[in-house]
Amino acid sequence: MTDPDALAAFVEALGDIPVLLDPALVKQRSQDFFWFSPVLKRQLNDMTAELVVCPRTRDEVTHTMAAAWRCGINVTPRGGGTGNHGQAVPLRGGAVLDLSRLDRIVWVRDGMMRVEAGAKLIDLDKILRERGWELRMFPSTKRTATIGGFVAGGSDGIGSITWGGLRDAGNVIAAQVVTAEAPPRVLELRGSETDLINHAYGTTGIVTELELPLAPAMQWRDIVVAFPDFMQAARFCLVLAACPGIDLKLVTTIDSTIVPSLEVLRELVAVGESLALLMVAPSGMTTLAELVSAHGGQIVLDADTLKSEITSGSVPLYEFTWNHTTLQMLTQDRTVTYLRSLFPAADPLALVERMRTLFGDELPMHLEFLRVGGALTCAGLQIVRFTTEDRLAEIISIHEQNGVSISNPHVYTIENGSGHKRLPVNQMGFKHEVDPLGILNPGKMRDFVPVRAPAENAE
Amino acid sequence: MTDPDALAAFVEALGDIPVLLDPALVKQRSQDFFWFSPVLKRQLNDMTAELVVCPRTRDEVTHTMAAAWRCGINVTPRGGGTGNHGQAVPLRGGAVLDLSRLDRIVWVRDGMMRVEAGAKLIDLDKILRERGWELRMFPSTKRTATIGGFVAGGSDGIGSITWGGLRDAGNVIAAQVVTAEAPPRVLELRGSETDLINHAYGTTGIVTELELPLAPAMQWRDIVVAFPDFMQAARFCLVLAACPGIDLKLVTTIDSTIVPSLEVLRELVAVGESLALLMVAPSGMTTLAELVSAHGGQIVLDADTLKSEITSGSVPLYEFTWNHTTLQMLTQDRTVTYLRSLFPAADPLALVERMRTLFGDELPMHLEFLRVGGALTCAGLQIVRFTTEDRLAEIISIHEQNGVSISNPHVYTIENGSGHKRLPVNQMGFKHEVDPLGILNPGKMRDFVPVRAPAENAE
Repeated sequence: MTDPDALAAFVEALGDIPVLLDPALVKQRSQDFFWFSPVLKRQLNDMTAELVVCPRTRDEVTHTMAAAWRCGINVTPRGGGTGNHGQAVPLRGGAVLDLSRLDRIVWVRDGMMRVEAGAKLIDLDKILRERGWELRMFPSTKRTATIGGFVAGGSDGIGSITWGGLRDAGNVIAAQVVTAEAPPRVLELRGSETDLINHAYGTTGIVTELELPLAPAMQWRDIVVAFPDFMQAARFCLVLAACPGIDLKLVTTIDSTIVPSLEVLRELVAVGESLALLMVAPSGMTTLAELVSAHGGQIVLDADTLKSEITSGSVPLYEFTWNHTTLQMLTQDRTVTYLRSLFPAADPLALVERMRTLFGDELPMHLEFLRVGGALTCAGLQIVRFTTEDRLAEIISIHEQNGVSISNPHVYTIENGSGHKRLPVNQMGFKHEVDPLGILNPGKMRDFVPVRAPAENAE
Repeated sequence: MTDPDALAAFVEALGDIPVLLDPALVKQRSQDFFWFSPVLKRQLNDMTAELVVCPRTRDEVTHTMAAAWRCGINVTPRGGGTGNHGQAVPLRGGAVLDLSRLDRIVWVRDGMMRVEAGAKLIDLDKILRERGWELRMFPSTKRTATIGGFVAGGSDGIGSITWGGLRDAGNVIAAQVVTAEAPPRVLELRGSETDLINHAYGTTGIVTELELPLAPAMQWRDIVVAFPDFMQAARFCLVLAACPGIDLKLVTTIDSTIVPSLEVLRELVAVGESLALLMVAPSGMTTLAELVSAHGGQIVLDADTLKSEITSGSVPLYEFTWNHTTLQMLTQDRTVTYLRSLFPAADPLALVERMRTLFGDELPMHLEFLRVGGALTCAGLQIVRFTTEDRLAEIISIHEQNGVSISNPHVYTIENGSGHKRLPVNQMGFKHEVDPLGILNPGKMRDFVPVRAPAENAE
C-alpha cells in the first residue's frame, strides 16, 4: 500500500489531469490478460494500483511524472491492457498511467508515421489505409491494443512473416520517452537507441510518441485451408512462407484438436482436419491454389480481411491466430493455457513433429510462421492442457532440452525465458539513468535495484 | 539461307503486316548483347535473319505464324534485344519477330497487371507508378527491355533481393502464347504452366501477353556506400539484405578494381575503395545509416532513384549493377567479359573470399544479393579479364569444383550451365506440342529434334 498522505499529495499535484479513484475501475485497469497463465493468475490476480491517471498530452505525462517523483508514487504505464504477461499490472501499487488519450497522429509521410503512444492500432490502420499504407505488423488484439503498448509490451504478430519482429532492425525508427526524474526529461531515441524501450514494459521511461515504418496497403484475403493431417498443413505453410513471389501477412497452422474451439471455422471443416490460416494478397491467389492442391489441402474460406474487420458480427481471421487461438480455446475450456516457443530455423518441422510425438494431446500444436533475424521459422503457441505448475515447468524444460527455445509466458519479468535470460540490450543501465528511484513499473526488471528507494525521496 | 521462293511467299502472305528487308536493319535486329562474351561473339556475330516482321496485334502474330508454318520459315521472337546470351539471335535465318509494337496494357488491378509482351519496362513502370504500383523486378536494361523479353529471356534482377527470381512461384501469373502450328493456337497458361515459356527464349511459343504481380510503389533512394575493403562491403551487404525491417530493391557489392570504370561513381570515392550500391526505401534510412557506420562504411551518395531515371544526363544507380556493371567496364576495356555464378546460401561469403584469393585481379568481384527459393544469397557477375577460351572454361570449372554454381553466359542454348544442365520443366515436351516443326528460335533448345523437318512441310 502506498502511503495515503503521499497519494493525496500526488492527486493534489495532478491538478486537472483526469484521475480514476473508484476501486473497481482502478482494479480493472490494473489488469491485463495475464490470466491466460494459471501461474500469473495466482501471482497477479490481487495486484492493484490505488488510482489511474489519464493524461491527455505529453505535458500532462511530464507533469504526472514530476508529481510521482516528488510524492514517491510508483507508476505503471498502460495502453490497451492486452498483454499476457502482466506487463500493465502494478506489482507495488501506486498509479496506473493510462496513455490511451494520447492518440494523435503527428504525421504520415514517405512510408513512415509518427504517432502518440496511446493510438489504437485499429484506428491507425484505418487512417493509414486511406493514405495507401498499413501497419507492418500488429498483434491479434489489433482491435483494442495501442501502438505504445505493442512496442513496449509486444514483440511480433500478424505481419512478422514478412517484416520480422519489432526488435528487428528498422521496425522502430524513433521513440519519444518521458523519464522519471526531477524534472523529467523528454528524450528522443532514434534507430537502435529505441532498443532501450522496446519490450521493456515501460520500465525505462514512459513512451509518448513513436516513429514507425509502414507497409504499403494491400487488399488482404482471409484464407482457410483444410488438411487431413497436421504435419501436412505445417509443411504446406513452410513451403508457402518460403515463396518470395507471394505477398503474405499471416501463415498459421492449427491442430485439428483445437479446431472444435474455433467458432465459425469449425463449421467449415470435417472432424479431424487441421487448418492453415492465411492472409494472402490477391496477386498470390493463383499460385496459392496450386500449392494447396499440390499439398493435398482444400481452400474452405476465401474472404476479404478488411470487410470481416469492419462488418459487425464478422471476425477477421487474425482473431483466430497468435494468442487469440488460446483465447478462443479458453472460452471453451478455462483450464487450458499455452506456451511460447521458437523452433530453430534449420528444419523447424522436424522438431515440431518430435514435440508432437512427445506430448500428444497434452499440447495441441499451433504454429505461427515468422522471420527471426531474417531467417524463416515458426513459433509455437501450443495450447497446454494444464495440470500442475510442476508439470508445466517440466514441459518447458523438455522443450529446452530438445533445442526448442522458450519465452516463458508464465513469468511476469521482462527476462522471461531461456531465450531472454538476460536483457537484450543495456536496458538496465538506461533504467538507472532515467528511473533512478525505480518507480516505473517496479518489479518487472528482475535484477534492478535502485540506488535510492522511492521512500527516501518522498518528503 | 532460307529458300528465296519460300521467303517471297512468306512476305506475300504477310499482307500489310510491316516487314523490314533492308539487310543492315535486319542484321541490327538479329543481334543482342551477346558480344559481352568473346565466345558468343565468335559464334554469333555473323548470324542474321533475312527479314524482320513487326506485327501490331496478336492477330497479326497468329497470321505471321500461320504463314511461317506454311512457308517453312524459322521465326525468332525479339523484344528489346537486351539479352546477353544471343536469345534473340536467329541461328538458322528466317524471320525475326519484333514484338515491340504489341505494347498495350490490358488491365491493372488488385496488385496485378496484364500487358502485351512488347511493352517496355520503363513505360510500364511509369504508368504503374501513377496507380501506386511498380514492377517487382526488372533487369538493369529497364530503359530498353520489354516485359516479354524479360520473362522469355531473363531470370532476375533489380528487385530480386525481395521478390526472388522470375521462376520463383508467384512471380508470373499467366501467359498468352501463340503456337507454331497449322492453324496456330492461342494458349492461356496459368500459374506454374507459365514455367513452360519462362526463360525458354521463345522456343516454346510466341508470348503475346503476360499477367504479373506488382509491388507497391516506393520512393526508392539510390545509395552508394564506400568501404576500405571489398569483403567488408560484402559483409555489410549480406547483413543489410537479411534485415526484414528494411525495404530493399537492390543490394550490390563492387570491387575497388571495377570502380575506376564507373563514370560519376568513381569521382565519389578514394582509390582502392569498394562499393555497396543500394536502393533503399526512405523508412529504412535511419537504420541503414547505423549499419553503414557499424561496418566502417561511408555513404557517399544519396539520391532519388526516380529523379535520376527521368532526368536527362543523370544515371539511376541500377545502371551500374547486374550486367550493366560489365557494360560499364566494357566501355573502358573491350577485352573483359564476365561470369554468372551463384554462391550457396549457407555462408556465401566464405566462398566469395576463397574465389577472390584463387583468382585475384583476373576476376574483379561483383556481387548481386538476391533470394533464390526463399533463401538469401548472392550471385557473382564477376568481371573476367579474358585471355583464352580454354582459360575461361578452366575458370568456370574451378568454380564448379569449389561449389559455386555457374550459369554459363558463354553458351547460347537454354541449357546453359551446371545449374541448368537440364531444362527446368518439361519445356521440351511442350515444344513438341506447340512447335512440331521446330521453327521457333531453332537451335536454342539443345537436344530438341523436330519430328518433321520444316522443309518437309514447305510446298
